[in-house]
Amino acid sequence: MAANWSAEVQRVEDYLAAHATDFVERWAQWLRIPSISADSAYWGDLERAADWLLEQLQALGLSVEKISTAGPPLVYAESPPVPGAPTVLVYGHYDVQPVAPVEAWQSPPFEPTLRDGAMYARGATDDKGQLLTHIWSTEAWLKEIGRLPIQLKFLVEGEEEVGSEHLNNFLSRRPAQLACDCVVISDGAQLGPDQPAICYGLRGIAYYELRLRGPKRDLHSGSFGGAVTNPVNALAKILAGLVDEQGRIQIPGFYDQVQPLSAEERERLARLPFDEKKFLAQLGVCGAWGEEGYSLLERRWARPTFDIHGIWGGYQGEGSKTVLPAEAGAKFSFRLVPHQEPAKITEALRQRLQQLCPPGIQLQLLETAGTPAVLVSVDSPYVQAAYRAIQKAFGREPVFIREGGSIPIVASLQQVFQVPVLLLGWGQDDDNTHAPNERFRLVDFHRGIRASAYLWAELAQIQTTP
Amino acid sequence: MAANWSAEVQRVEDYLAAHATDFVERWAQWLRIPSISADSAYWGDLERAADWLLEQLQALGLSVEKISTAGPPLVYAESPPVPGAPTVLVYGHYDVQPVAPVEAWQSPPFEPTLRDGAMYARGATDDKGQLLTHIWSTEAWLKEIGRLPIQLKFLVEGEEEVGSEHLNNFLSRRPAQLACDCVVISDGAQLGPDQPAICYGLRGIAYYELRLRGPKRDLHSGSFGGAVTNPVNALAKILAGLVDEQGRIQIPGFYDQVQPLSAEERERLARLPFDEKKFLAQLGVCGAWGEEGYSLLERRWARPTFDIHGIWGGYQGEGSKTVLPAEAGAKFSFRLVPHQEPAKITEALRQRLQQLCPPGIQLQLLETAGTPAVLVSVDSPYVQAAYRAIQKAFGREPVFIREGGSIPIVASLQQVFQVPVLLLGWGQDDDNTHAPNERFRLVDFHRGIRASAYLWAELAQIQTTP
Repeated sequence: MAANWSAEVQRVEDYLAAHATDFVERWAQWLRIPSISADSAYWGDLERAADWLLEQLQALGLSVEKISTAGPPLVYAESPPVPGAPTVLVYGHYDVQPVAPVEAWQSPPFEPTLRDGAMYARGATDDKGQLLTHIWSTEAWLKEIGRLPIQLKFLVEGEEEVGSEHLNNFLSRRPAQLACDCVVISDGAQLGPDQPAICYGLRGIAYYELRLRGPKRDLHSGSFGGAVTNPVNALAKILAGLVDEQGRIQIPGFYDQVQPLSAEERERLARLPFDEKKFLAQLGVCGAWGEEGYSLLERRWARPTFDIHGIWGGYQGEGSKTVLPAEAGAKFSFRLVPHQEPAKITEALRQRLQQLCPPGIQLQLLETAGTPAVLVSVDSPYVQAAYRAIQKAFGREPVFIREGGSIPIVASLQQVFQVPVLLLGWGQDDDNTHAPNERFRLVDFHRGIRASAYLWAELAQIQTTP
Repeated sequence: MAANWSAEVQRVEDYLAAHATDFVERWAQWLRIPSISADSAYWGDLERAADWLLEQLQALGLSVEKISTAGPPLVYAESPPVPGAPTVLVYGHYDVQPVAPVEAWQSPPFEPTLRDGAMYARGATDDKGQLLTHIWSTEAWLKEIGRLPIQLKFLVEGEEEVGSEHLNNFLSRRPAQLACDCVVISDGAQLGPDQPAICYGLRGIAYYELRLRGPKRDLHSGSFGGAVTNPVNALAKILAGLVDEQGRIQIPGFYDQVQPLSAEERERLARLPFDEKKFLAQLGVCGAWGEEGYSLLERRWARPTFDIHGIWGGYQGEGSKTVLPAEAGAKFSFRLVPHQEPAKITEALRQRLQQLCPPGIQLQLLETAGTPAVLVSVDSPYVQAAYRAIQKAFGREPVFIREGGSIPIVASLQQVFQVPVLLLGWGQDDDNTHAPNERFRLVDFHRGIRASAYLWAELAQIQTTP
């Protein structure tokens, strides 16, 4: 069987090599469809992008379904079950970010262009290119071998860039259809050029808007300053009171669920090839700062934070105006780590805000749905299978990383299915995701396809109980 | 002489009574000219308003001068010196505030309308109506008696509402022409209905804009939060660090020049008819707050304060955006009390900001020209003369008050001439200055004219050395 197996993988590799140009050409076809989900002018193109994908999946002999929602349709496809082998759900999205400022693009965003060994187009990496690596690898298995070594389910949405409003609803409506042993998502980056990575952790988030009201109208700060609480003064005081000089969040109970990082994990993170000076220089900051007692990567990936995203109040125009504003507000969030529950954080925050709010101020806290953190054990056989597949495709061992951001859909998938999520980013940090001149290097595209093809084989070696 | 004097004053009173209607009619003529200094569309009207005033002053036989500036012209007029009697400079302004929102006016802002015993129009009280009280009183003396008991100089500008840019320059260029023993300004309010007041103190101000820069571009708060200083977090921390929970400003040296309030003054302020509950209810605030150890009036009028006038940074739109903004800023000021010097405050502030600024943040402080506080001794013979004049015109003793606001031109006049400034506001707090439906009650207009006429007589009793 091992010999047979190895022969099959060889034939898959040959198929991939033979179709390399074809894969790029079909990828470019998809990239020509301007499937911008943020702009209703492109709703027809979202539909076209979904149809294009359905056609590709159907051509592989998968059983496909176009699922209507109040937003762009969901695309679903599945191969037959493989008894004793895992079922793997591949998630991706066919919608793309807007392109403004369009004049900053060297080639038009929806005219895919090969330049310097990379494909330039909106969606090149996020997520059309990365998602296709899993579809082209599946094609190789199905066209060359005639079957997949595992069962695959593809779930692709068209509104990831605008909040995945209708996907969550679908997840809870069809849990049986989507049942799986592991989820695979390629919608991110490697640690660096030629340094592939497996992301095993995401931070969660709890996002808020705080509104303060003082006097019922704007007042003259000369006549009234000193007599009534200034809502902007109060806002600064309250926000400053949520975190101390050492970067520790000042909310009683906030850290109660936070687990200390294991010595093993801290060592692993410390060993990562990461140049802190270069990182800071690229950001253009004049000095580093963060929670005391943690390395920069730990602070980015594995510790909770407090960031104010927006603040407003009073006069923001030119010159001076001596107003004592009637109101002020801010948007802010806490990034959460595993085991912290957004609802508990909100409760603790409300109590702390009551403590901090000075007399003469009415306070309103608006809460956005929170997202818990995600953490996958690196010892999971699924993670180990991905490790081997990537090692083989990239010719080098992947490193284990975490991500500081939050991907609500990953948290949802993990919550619904309670299975490991493999976050296998094939891109690079400088691929200009969400920016002009988005690109995906051809070398990463093709290595991604190969890694995916190997992954199906490696995952097949995990025995599942039927 | 006393008998003769009293007879003269009686004749002046008779003139005022005989011309009461005429005074109102001419006042309305002036109010019809929309002399809005903030809008260049009205520059022709500023010129017309200045010319109208020049004509009135010329008709009294005063020697007049129209002084061109790069902005609206200054109007100057003077009567002949009166040996042994003081020279008094009357300051006022002929420009008015904009009228928006114009739909909130019950009668059009430039169609002066008598309603419920008040004149409604933009500029009715601020400052056309109040300035005219001194011109009509002068007319009575000159037309009825043929001379003034003191020398009067009128200096009227057309850009008070936009910062008096060109007046200060003029003051320093022509100090000899403007030399005087006291300055009179009526551009404010009484303490309440039928409670005239003499304002003997103004707070100063030191106004700033603070700009913070962190990373060179906006960052994703998930990927970078915790690794770099967030400029909005830093802004909240820095601003919160400038004042403590008790309202004491936290800048070393800030209070060095502040004199304690005398027991006598505190008692006088405590005796003023002031209803704190009613005051706060009118402002619609849910609780009082201010510097500990001081009464509300002391905090408004005689203690330094810190107020943030505007704050901005990051995302202020709808919904949530997880940005770690590259920059943030705020406008704020300190109200100053007598003996505090704006330049020293700026120096101390700069040092304090350096202490408060976290790593990773570049800080820029922009300074607006500061204004020192003004304090006039209530024992001055000029103040006592005003006291007697007001008592006679209003039929009740004025109270001594201070004002929390800053009037740069008053500080400039006091600095240039080193003489007492008499701030004699004839208006009321509810006259809607700077707001729709500005008004000036006729009773206050006429009492103001009478008080002014008596004031010239009372001031004439002060012996000056030639």
